[in-house]
Amino acid sequence: MSQELLVELAEWIAIPSVSADPDCAGDVERAGEWLAEKIREAGGEAEKIDWHGQPLVVGEIAASGGGEAPTVLCYGHFDVQTAEPVELWESDPFTLVERDGWLYGRGSADDKGQLLILLEAARSLAREGALPVNVRFVCDGEEEVGGHSIADFLVADERGADACLIFDTSMIERDVPAFTIASRGLAYLHLELSSGERDLHSGVYGGAALNALHALNRTLAAVLPVEGRLPEPLLEGVEPLSAEELVSIAALPPGADVLAEQGARLSDSNAAAEFYLRTGAQPALDVNGIVGGSAHLQKTVLPVRAEANLSIRLAPGQDPDTIVAALEQLLREAAPAGAELHVQLLSASPPGLVLQDAPAIRLALAAFERSFGRRPLLVRTGGTMPIMHALQLKGIPAVVTGFDLPEGNIHSPNERFWAGYLEPGIAAAREILGEFGAGLEPKRSAV
Amino acid sequence: MSQELLVELAEWIAIPSVSADPDCAGDVERAGEWLAEKIREAGGEAEKIDWHGQPLVVGEIAASGGGEAPTVLCYGHFDVQTAEPVELWESDPFTLVERDGWLYGRGSADDKGQLLILLEAARSLAREGALPVNVRFVCDGEEEVGGHSIADFLVADERGADACLIFDTSMIERDVPAFTIASRGLAYLHLELSSGERDLHSGVYGGAALNALHALNRTLAAVLPVEGRLPEPLLEGVEPLSAEELVSIAALPPGADVLAEQGARLSDSNAAAEFYLRTGAQPALDVNGIVGGSAHLQKTVLPVRAEANLSIRLAPGQDPDTIVAALEQLLREAAPAGAELHVQLLSASPPGLVLQDAPAIRLALAAFERSFGRRPLLVRTGGTMPIMHALQLKGIPAVVTGFDLPEGNIHSPNERFWAGYLEPGIAAAREILGEFGAGLEPKRSAV
Repeated sequence: MSQELLVELAEWIAIPSVSADPDCAGDVERAGEWLAEKIREAGGEAEKIDWHGQPLVVGEIAASGGGEAPTVLCYGHFDVQTAEPVELWESDPFTLVERDGWLYGRGSADDKGQLLILLEAARSLAREGALPVNVRFVCDGEEEVGGHSIADFLVADERGADACLIFDTSMIERDVPAFTIASRGLAYLHLELSSGERDLHSGVYGGAALNALHALNRTLAAVLPVEGRLPEPLLEGVEPLSAEELVSIAALPPGADVLAEQGARLSDSNAAAEFYLRTGAQPALDVNGIVGGSAHLQKTVLPVRAEANLSIRLAPGQDPDTIVAALEQLLREAAPAGAELHVQLLSASPPGLVLQDAPAIRLALAAFERSFGRRPLLVRTGGTMPIMHALQLKGIPAVVTGFDLPEGNIHSPNERFWAGYLEPGIAAAREILGEFGAGLEPKRSAV
Repeated sequence: MSQELLVELAEWIAIPSVSADPDCAGDVERAGEWLAEKIREAGGEAEKIDWHGQPLVVGEIAASGGGEAPTVLCYGHFDVQTAEPVELWESDPFTLVERDGWLYGRGSADDKGQLLILLEAARSLAREGALPVNVRFVCDGEEEVGGHSIADFLVADERGADACLIFDTSMIERDVPAFTIASRGLAYLHLELSSGERDLHSGVYGGAALNALHALNRTLAAVLPVEGRLPEPLLEGVEPLSAEELVSIAALPPGADVLAEQGARLSDSNAAAEFYLRTGAQPALDVNGIVGGSAHLQKTVLPVRAEANLSIRLAPGQDPDTIVAALEQLLREAAPAGAELHVQLLSASPPGLVLQDAPAIRLALAAFERSFGRRPLLVRTGGTMPIMHALQLKGIPAVVTGFDLPEGNIHSPNERFWAGYLEPGIAAAREILGEFGAGLEPKRSAV
């Protein structure tokens, strides 16, 4: 069976479904068609649909034996990152190659390989007449360029589900699995500050005319963290970590090591000790860019225009509208008289948080532990996953996990998936689906 | 005589000596040769020399009757600003045209027209056998692109002079003449700040990793003015305005009007009331440019590199080395731990101040007032004139004045000089030279 799975994975990886490359749009469609066909071959129904211009695959393999059964939503994505720079690959990015126990190829870990594990778990149970739940696949082809279409679709979707199972993340390290139970939201703003009609001679007017970069400095200072702490109004809604999360954090690599590995410096003296709290359960504000005046050429200009990009990662519990309003108010209050501040909200995504006490999560944790031999840690990503908020909004508890490894090189040359995790992955997914079938009440699904 | 002068000015303006345009290098040389020839025609000696790659004209018309006489240095420049955008000129920039009382042409006011006034004053006195001083011309061809060669030359020059007369500035308004008695110095720095090895994902590391733009914000905040006042160490050496300057300031247009005319906003609530103090007798720090991260593209980057240009105008009395050291220390003390700050001094020019009680200044004020009918105001330029410091260093009192008007469009299309100021200009220069001959002791000059 494993050999057949590798043949399938090789076929799928050979389709260069790079969503960021307009020339690959047809390949993204083909990769979706490929998935839909596999679901149909497994006795399910599936079609590739166009959702506001984005390709989604929506399909379902019904529970064995008919009758009422819980519905489990399985998400994954069939698009991949670009393979550039191709010259850094040791073998062709779109040819699956096994080497030293690793399966090399773009999408082997992120996410074709892992999505295929979910599919294999569901269809093997169906083949055995033992699939205890309806497995509904909703998969997208633009995860690497936004992932908003899947969130929109799920919010609009009336079918619902009793739980969601996603294999698209990484273990902490080899054999240390994790459930990602939260993602931060993101509000992204563009600022334009004007302090006059035209740039001035710094000699003739310097000391009396308002410099836009000085005004921007003061404006931004009002929202920047001081010793790691943001102004009070930006903390509204923040919720503490759960007891099990605190235990999980103690098992994670020290924050100082994580930062040092990236060549990063601490933002302040507590940043290492509070790394997981700061990046998972607290908002973080970052100035993403500033431009104004003449930063390279030696020009005696007193600039009257400055621009900045500014974003805030929202902690679970925080409301984007509230925080954006507070942020804008702090900025406006701090802008000196004479500075015209134009604030444009470019995008906003809410944070997502899984209800850890939901039966589905408890069942999945137990099933995973029984199958894999180790209980997953509960972790948070500091990044933004629109799907997590959509599922939270629909009240669908989400198990977000995966078998990628930190050394899996996703988004980089030589992406690889540890072949030894194919079987344990399928086994864990089967165990979780089984547990869901036995333990979940089919209240949300409606055929 | 005036008609002959106009023919000469037309000839000189027809040479497009644009020092910023490498294609005009030959024209700059020709414009210098033209001037040297005029000095020789007047019975003087003159040559165009190459001073470290820059053309200078050095010449002298000896005092009538021989014997010991004071030496007066006359400075002016024979290069001009570019005429671009040419399409905005109402007549050809390099053809002298008289219209509505104005003499139009590039260089008519800045500075060929005014330098010719000085030359005419000296040679007419010489022609009459009544030149009471040696008039030494030292003129440059790069004033519009730096003006450092003339300062270097004067510092190195052993000839010396008992006074200096420069016609290269403007009246406050029509019939309100001024002597510029001070210019600010300038120290220009480039800052590079690094807070890590590579840019980071703002979601995964935001809140724990040091953002270079945040570090730069805090670093710069330590040297920016607060309510118009710079940190104490940057004020060292500042000297108060003289009583006559305070009287002059009261006669100048209100600072609020000057700023409003430029479409500028006040840097703080006292900036209008203190405009002349701030721009003339105080140092001013300006961030000239900042660049870092992604200011336009919506990119969730946590930047670890930022750059800025930063300059400080030095008030008369301040020492560039002292202030640069203090500035660098303030910056380094403010940079947060983890930020590597690289500070590069790009250039430094000292401030210049004329000794107002020097006999030459008193004599010139009186002579100008007698000739023109109005006593010049004593003003300061916030800009930087390297020649003023060089003259101060040599102990040569400098009369820096001129007959350009604010509406003379220097550095802009349709540059023009008020024809009605030709005769009064020559008369004032003759009167000053006469007064110098009568009142100055020839102690510095040595034939």
